[in-house]
Amino acid sequence: MQQIKNYIEQNKQRMLDELLNLLRFPSISADPKYKDDVIKTADFVAQKLRDAGADNVEVCPTAGYPIVYGEKIINPAKPTVLVYGHYDVQPPDPLELWHTPPFEPSIRDNKIFARGACDDKGQFYMHVKAFELMMQTHTLPCNIKFMIEGEEEVGSDNLGHFVQANKERLKADVVLISDTAMISMEHPSLETGLRGLSYLEVEVTGPNRDLHSGVYGGAVANPATILAKMIASLHDENNRITIPGFYDDVLNLTQDERDAINSAPYDEAEYKADLGVDELWGEKGYSTFERTGTRPTLEVNGIWGGYIGEGAKTVLPSKANAKISMRLVPNQSSDKITKLFADHFTSIAPPYVKVKVNALHGGEPVVTPTDSIAYQAAQKAIAESFGKEPIPTRGGGSIPIVALFEAELGIKTVLMGFGLDSDNLHSPNEKYDIYNYYKGIETIPLFYKYFDELSK
Amino acid sequence: MQQIKNYIEQNKQRMLDELLNLLRFPSISADPKYKDDVIKTADFVAQKLRDAGADNVEVCPTAGYPIVYGEKIINPAKPTVLVYGHYDVQPPDPLELWHTPPFEPSIRDNKIFARGACDDKGQFYMHVKAFELMMQTHTLPCNIKFMIEGEEEVGSDNLGHFVQANKERLKADVVLISDTAMISMEHPSLETGLRGLSYLEVEVTGPNRDLHSGVYGGAVANPATILAKMIASLHDENNRITIPGFYDDVLNLTQDERDAINSAPYDEAEYKADLGVDELWGEKGYSTFERTGTRPTLEVNGIWGGYIGEGAKTVLPSKANAKISMRLVPNQSSDKITKLFADHFTSIAPPYVKVKVNALHGGEPVVTPTDSIAYQAAQKAIAESFGKEPIPTRGGGSIPIVALFEAELGIKTVLMGFGLDSDNLHSPNEKYDIYNYYKGIETIPLFYKYFDELSK
Repeated sequence: MQQIKNYIEQNKQRMLDELLNLLRFPSISADPKYKDDVIKTADFVAQKLRDAGADNVEVCPTAGYPIVYGEKIINPAKPTVLVYGHYDVQPPDPLELWHTPPFEPSIRDNKIFARGACDDKGQFYMHVKAFELMMQTHTLPCNIKFMIEGEEEVGSDNLGHFVQANKERLKADVVLISDTAMISMEHPSLETGLRGLSYLEVEVTGPNRDLHSGVYGGAVANPATILAKMIASLHDENNRITIPGFYDDVLNLTQDERDAINSAPYDEAEYKADLGVDELWGEKGYSTFERTGTRPTLEVNGIWGGYIGEGAKTVLPSKANAKISMRLVPNQSSDKITKLFADHFTSIAPPYVKVKVNALHGGEPVVTPTDSIAYQAAQKAIAESFGKEPIPTRGGGSIPIVALFEAELGIKTVLMGFGLDSDNLHSPNEKYDIYNYYKGIETIPLFYKYFDELSK
Repeated sequence: MQQIKNYIEQNKQRMLDELLNLLRFPSISADPKYKDDVIKTADFVAQKLRDAGADNVEVCPTAGYPIVYGEKIINPAKPTVLVYGHYDVQPPDPLELWHTPPFEPSIRDNKIFARGACDDKGQFYMHVKAFELMMQTHTLPCNIKFMIEGEEEVGSDNLGHFVQANKERLKADVVLISDTAMISMEHPSLETGLRGLSYLEVEVTGPNRDLHSGVYGGAVANPATILAKMIASLHDENNRITIPGFYDDVLNLTQDERDAINSAPYDEAEYKADLGVDELWGEKGYSTFERTGTRPTLEVNGIWGGYIGEGAKTVLPSKANAKISMRLVPNQSSDKITKLFADHFTSIAPPYVKVKVNALHGGEPVVTPTDSIAYQAAQKAIAESFGKEPIPTRGGGSIPIVALFEAELGIKTVLMGFGLDSDNLHSPNEKYDIYNYYKGIETIPLFYKYFDELSK
């Protein structure tokens, strides 16, 4: 442990500067105009893996953005850890809400502000530096494989093919991912489940052209009004989703499971104050942690139609659109829910509009086992570096790869995240505490140590 | 009449070229970045009035865009006609739907395609050319005053002050406006009423920042969803507006008035085919012409919130906005309806969001008399040039100036429009038939002739 602390102490500044350089790449996978930057980011990651001591480093082409692979096989008899992360980031808009430019990392109050600081550059890069640390101090006790992709924020469309085509190369005993959050540094936690995702875009068309709202208003359906009515109908008065069959496959938690989730520290006044809302909203009969961790949800991620510029334009728009996504819980199927949504949304379209529904992407929900050697290794690592047992929690986010790995390679995942819910993931002013970054680099080698010991 | 036809024939091309030049100015009053172009347009109009023979031409400054004034007083004892028009235009977006650039007029199939071709450059410029014709042929029988403004598309905010400050200068016996449509060239019509307008922008705020829809989704209200529910609640199952008191001041038409309106030629199949819709929508119990001409309406002119770029972003937005306008009918008050909307919209906001309502502009509804000398002069002029009596109709659009003139100067208006509902006003590919342009220039001098005769 002291050896780990010493190495970090001696390389502190360089480890931070390298992350800042990584954060300077605008690797926005959702926006084609950043294509070159995304690819440059992959090359940068590959070089850093080589520098840290990885063998067989390769920037593997896919139909989309490349996947960076690297490995260190110290002894085939030893357990193997497959580290997954992603070097792509969410779009930064709305830009005007950033206090400093999203791709010019700025350090304030010991926090790194930049798009991707926490999700996921800051977190996967801890593994690169922890690997370097174990190599330099000759303490790497397991085989290690890295697979860092560039399409996580757009649905990891090409990862499945890659995994299927590389089953031998990716063979491992556990997948280790840092792309989630802890409750707080005072309350370290380990996520034991993730929600799935179905993401669609809908288009409602009324008249075949934008119309003068005075000449035609009142005589032809306004697609923005109709879209509003359709969206409004998707939640009932208890904020339950009204799509027929939507809840059919949801596994209801036992009272013990609910108690465990609700035992996590939670201060509603603080929660509301942080979000700046007077009242919370959600499915009737569930607590906040149950709503975000164990219940499926439907959110409008974006809506647009008609004139949205400055001033007043009296137009009756031809089209209105929305991006709508659903978070899924264990036993729900992304494909099935996507189809249920599409069928329902089309079925509720009134005869005076036309509706198009386009599925953008999806991912399956997962539950990770808490009785595995790997989970115990993570527990012991965190207990040692934080001086406190981690609390098991259910995460609300989605990491499609977890279900994919289980299905394709039969490997379970450990979600050892060091972020915080307050890190503004997907929001302006995303940040990552420098403390958490070093804490992760300190904790990860302990995971390898205990995973090796417990595997004997 | 022959003299009029001859003059037009001899000056056809020049009269058209001048209009095309006027249409090349992007005089978009709603968008500050076109400020210089709007002002240049005013100067162009002033010069054309001078060229046509107007005296005391002045580009009158206002708190906003200038008002162009010009006059020809042939004899104070003669009746005086005040011509109103506007040189500003609607924003052209969505640009991608234009077949040719909005400010590069293109002639196809004897139609001029350009923003403002019909609304209102093409129509007010007919008056400038008809004035030139009467000057050149020494046939101007009345005094004439021009007042061409540059803020009609943004609510004519500064026109009121100008009118109040220039009552003497604007003294006239009738206001003549060509900013409306006829049923068709085969069915010439005269509008006898216009709807008023209340235009507002609303903002619904949920959390104080955009959130990760996985981490927070299901536990905090989504402002886009809430805005959709609020908008959805503004119309009931009969498509009536649910704002308390909204219909209180509406004067219901007599059966005779309704019959007159419904006597206008109307082919529903054609109407639907032109708009590309399978079904029409509107307030239960009323015909299409009644809905657009005699009933108040509420339209969403624009809606936006969250991520509207390419691809998928799993964000729970902080804000959602909409531009909403209501068309008002005689006896409704714009200020009162604006207040009713603001109070109602605020009152239906649930406790987990904050709502802001901002009134952008408004205008009062009007009915123009059909028993006046001026109206009869317009009837006779159209009957002579079209060989058919015009059908009285109720227009759905709004021209705030009409009510303003009545209130401030006590002058009634004649709405002698030569556009068509199919001219794509406020839409991409706005057009004006060259035939209508010349037909207007031919008809207007006849109005002056009969207005003078009937005034004796």
